Amino acid sequence: MTMNLPDALRPRTFLRIDHLGIAVPSLEAFVPVYEALLGAPCEHIEEVASEKVRTAFFSLGESHFELLEALDPESVIGRFVAQRKGGIHHICIAVSDIDAALAEYAAKGVRLIDKVPRAGAKGCRVAFVHPAATGGVLIELSQAP
Amino acid sequence: MTMNLPDALRPRTFLRIDHLGIAVPSLEAFVPVYEALLGAPCEHIEEVASEKVRTAFFSLGESHFELLEALDPESVIGRFVAQRKGGIHHICIAVSDIDAALAEYAAKGVRLIDKVPRAGAKGCRVAFVHPAATGGVLIELSQAP
Repeated sequence: MTMNLPDALRPRTFLRIDHLGIAVPSLEAFVPVYEALLGAPCEHIEEVASEKVRTAFFSLGESHFELLEALDPESVIGRFVAQRKGGIHHICIAVSDIDAALAEYAAKGVRLIDKVPRAGAKGCRVAFVHPAATGGVLIELSQAP
Repeated sequence: MTMNLPDALRPRTFLRIDHLGIAVPSLEAFVPVYEALLGAPCEHIEEVASEKVRTAFFSLGESHFELLEALDPESVIGRFVAQRKGGIHHICIAVSDIDAALAEYAAKGVRLIDKVPRAGAKGCRVAFVHPAATGGVLIELSQAP
């Protein structure tokens, strides 16, 4: 029953930039580059078999950079790198309540790829907004467990 | 003389994602979209005559989203929108000391567009890294006044 609360007193749904997903041709080549660019060591490398990628994480303030290397040229990231040579693939926004966020988007007519959250890495629940709804930006929402 | 300090005790140079610059065909069309996407009102609209753009700012955590609308089809943003229809144009990283950051980049061989900082909006000093150095991502550094 937060409907009649003034905006400043409502619990926030959209919290921060969780991470930027950046597609690169190879982690071996680009992990040292981003260590130099961000002045910080790579924190973590992980293979996500379901997405056919290897990922490398770096911290910057309350956000992360996630480098993505395709393990298969026919994967989403493989095709993105083949077409564009790489670059920013998506923005992930941390939300406090992904069901509330998706209901808010649906009420406002925002076109979604995932109308229902699905399982992401590390126990997160995630959903993607359709880039046609955002002017060409792929936006992911993520709720931590 | 911070050279011999352990990393955890050194002053941090790279602080946070200051903003993401997103090129859109029109602010009129996309300000309401990003208000819905970020669950927050547009805070500020400003014309930057030197860059031939109008910009709209939104807060998300410690970062901002900056929508960019070209005032001239031959401007950098005008050509970006014509080629790609829009999307993420640059990432701006807030630094505590832009001279130190650029010296660090130079020492590590990171290719720069601006070897010397130039004047940005609101009294900031800014410099761009060459996208060829980052795997296709245009990175701006910015030091607040």
